[in-house]
Amino acid sequence: MPTDLLHPNRRLHLAVAVQGTGSSALSWKWPGTTWNRWNDFAHYRRSAEIARGGVVDAVFVSDHPALSRDATRGPAHVFDPTVLFAAIAAAVPDIGFVLTASTSYNSPYDLARRLASLDTISGGRVIWNAVANFNPDIAANFGAEGLLDRQARYRKADEFVRVVTQLWLSFDTPRGEVPEEVLWDAATARTIDHHGEFFDVRGPLNVPIGPQGHPVIAQAGGSPAGIDFAGRHAEIVYAALLSRESAHGYGAALDAAALAHGRPSGSIRLLPGVNVVLGDTQAQARRRQEALSGVTGEDELIAAFLAQHRAAHPAIPRRLDPDRPLDPAWFAPAEDQQRPIGFTGALQDVVAREGLTARQIVRRTGPAGGHRVLVGTPREVARDLLDWWASGAVAGFTVHVPVLPGDLERFVAQVVPILQAEGAYPREYDGATIRERFGLADPRDRRGGGSPATLATRTA
Amino acid sequence: MPTDLLHPNRRLHLAVAVQGTGSSALSWKWPGTTWNRWNDFAHYRRSAEIARGGVVDAVFVSDHPALSRDATRGPAHVFDPTVLFAAIAAAVPDIGFVLTASTSYNSPYDLARRLASLDTISGGRVIWNAVANFNPDIAANFGAEGLLDRQARYRKADEFVRVVTQLWLSFDTPRGEVPEEVLWDAATARTIDHHGEFFDVRGPLNVPIGPQGHPVIAQAGGSPAGIDFAGRHAEIVYAALLSRESAHGYGAALDAAALAHGRPSGSIRLLPGVNVVLGDTQAQARRRQEALSGVTGEDELIAAFLAQHRAAHPAIPRRLDPDRPLDPAWFAPAEDQQRPIGFTGALQDVVAREGLTARQIVRRTGPAGGHRVLVGTPREVARDLLDWWASGAVAGFTVHVPVLPGDLERFVAQVVPILQAEGAYPREYDGATIRERFGLADPRDRRGGGSPATLATRTA
Repeated sequence: MPTDLLHPNRRLHLAVAVQGTGSSALSWKWPGTTWNRWNDFAHYRRSAEIARGGVVDAVFVSDHPALSRDATRGPAHVFDPTVLFAAIAAAVPDIGFVLTASTSYNSPYDLARRLASLDTISGGRVIWNAVANFNPDIAANFGAEGLLDRQARYRKADEFVRVVTQLWLSFDTPRGEVPEEVLWDAATARTIDHHGEFFDVRGPLNVPIGPQGHPVIAQAGGSPAGIDFAGRHAEIVYAALLSRESAHGYGAALDAAALAHGRPSGSIRLLPGVNVVLGDTQAQARRRQEALSGVTGEDELIAAFLAQHRAAHPAIPRRLDPDRPLDPAWFAPAEDQQRPIGFTGALQDVVAREGLTARQIVRRTGPAGGHRVLVGTPREVARDLLDWWASGAVAGFTVHVPVLPGDLERFVAQVVPILQAEGAYPREYDGATIRERFGLADPRDRRGGGSPATLATRTA
Repeated sequence: MPTDLLHPNRRLHLAVAVQGTGSSALSWKWPGTTWNRWNDFAHYRRSAEIARGGVVDAVFVSDHPALSRDATRGPAHVFDPTVLFAAIAAAVPDIGFVLTASTSYNSPYDLARRLASLDTISGGRVIWNAVANFNPDIAANFGAEGLLDRQARYRKADEFVRVVTQLWLSFDTPRGEVPEEVLWDAATARTIDHHGEFFDVRGPLNVPIGPQGHPVIAQAGGSPAGIDFAGRHAEIVYAALLSRESAHGYGAALDAAALAHGRPSGSIRLLPGVNVVLGDTQAQARRRQEALSGVTGEDELIAAFLAQHRAAHPAIPRRLDPDRPLDPAWFAPAEDQQRPIGFTGALQDVVAREGLTARQIVRRTGPAGGHRVLVGTPREVARDLLDWWASGAVAGFTVHVPVLPGDLERFVAQVVPILQAEGAYPREYDGATIRERFGLADPRDRRGGGSPATLATRTA
């Protein structure tokens, strides 16, 4: 385990998803669940409170501003994340917020202001997960005439983030004594006068620089354009990674991308997603994974996995030996696919890298692919998390649980104490802001021409 | 005083503005004020808590998504109102939120979702003050190439509100028993398929119908286009009205506009703005008004008022007898003015109607015009509010105070008890939602083809 406290991964970090009733498609009708909790603020607040009990760094929600057409599962993305997390921020101290918001359909001034407002109101607890949308259902709600191609989406995302970060540093206020005749020095509020391919924004922002400079920027892209984008902007990356080796490789690619954009090595914290299914024994955890997938045994779990992927790759045979290695070509991402390339790419990578069989892969990822599944006892789960982290592959994890809030309560009660006992995880909150907690640089230190007031503060 | 409890104005209503450090331009440096409270969430929450202590129906913020260029006063509009009120909603029960958001630079799907999220999270406490922006500083932050003319702004506002209200009623969920295989009946989620002059939006919204059907719609326009817009959509109107007679006339015009759009008489609650300056005596209250305006006596107050208006109307003489009636032509609104027509129109109206002198007008409105100023002892202020309300001219008031939170504390401690003692104002919160509190119709009762689930609930 690294003992160098200056190492960016000096302690393990955890974010937990608090999406609706949980990551399982069946969570809304799971015994003991109240089916309409995806629309109940008290449920979200309770999940955040449970996470805080586990000294979890941040709660996370993804987002999808369109109603899912699949009525057989709870609509995961109901409340607007800025509104939801503002309400939680006022009710639950300490915990951070990984807030997903689109660079495709927002206006940069408006989103910069909403995120800066929440960052100041929460005392510096916001992590913005910047996503480029690629779903026609969303486009149809925003009057978009056809979707941009992936390259253009990332060009737009890049321009969007550049505008937002400039706005976030565009208005400072003096500290300390009340000025005699003016409230702020005009030199501390500057227009940004941006005129780009997608946006024209004058500024300055009408929210002053907040407690952590500006919100931490997170990102999840797995494609080459996504990695380049992360190298430019991301401070935290949330990714689907199914093997420790691929995490090392992906982390190295992120670091190289950051270096290529003039940022120091170690600028990015990698927190891959992991879906934790706990049981008192390994066998019990496996039975629970099957039940949460709506099947009654391993054979059905394998059949469901193959049926899901056969839709995209008809070459997958209807009958195959579950104990023979799978053909990685069956999981190749399509350039025009709507799902994130990261998800399918991770699956193909681990199948090729480890020669996995169908029987093995269903215990590593969900029926539709997606994040790594970690099935086992609390001690087995903790051991796996500690091993990944201690190897230096990751700074921590974004934990998903099948059913909220019950599985989160169990994770906090049974897994977190093991991480703490191993000295890898704190027993109380550290750092005044989420940026300090992750050991990330203050953006005020790297902008050109800081305001006199700020420079005075920084050099004092 | 009306005793008919079915009368829409059956009791007096109060909203209070909680804008930054208060309505006075000097509030940020007023003795006892902490100058940077406009950026301190605890200050806003405290104002909302004080208002709740006075059983105030709702707190109000206006909005201006651009940094004011005038550094000699606090930037009033810092926090995004949806974020600010979401945080207050989680911390302060009961009180409603009059939330200003633009129909000019938002996307209707996004704003509909944010407001619906807040309405559900707060338990039905949202009033949306829909405003059409007409400020080039705002346009420059949103890439707008030139401003729309007033007529086009209102056409866009009308289309925006129609899209938002359709989205708000586009997705319902069954209540009660958990369904066997599906979470909602597909018939309860409907696309709106809107294709208009300004927007193309498919829907349905991904937030289900909330506790009060949808947020209450408020509006503030004083121009003919504004009154027509209110007649179509508004349930609460917030206006600058400087005389009781003009309030009666304006209320009648609103009612006629509502009737013209097929709505029943009495559909709109009028809550004009009033800026309350309290003193232990009338003389002390006047001295306070002068000090809050940055002058040291009545002569200077008159001079400041005339200088302010001379900028727009050079015909105003440099020397005039403060005890002779003013010429109403000096206050005529300009069609292309950036300030709301309602503000200048109200000033011209009261000058003409009452033959006011300069000495009189400065005690009725602020140096720059705007809302009615009410200067006096708590008993004088309460008497005036009660008289306006009892005459049937208004449903209540939107109260502004010069310095927050001190003047709000005083209003709640000294004025509200008189309104309560007169039987005009409640001693505790009534109504489960802000819509019920204002006696407004449930929008689910007037939409075409309600969902079976909703109809069952409504007729049960």
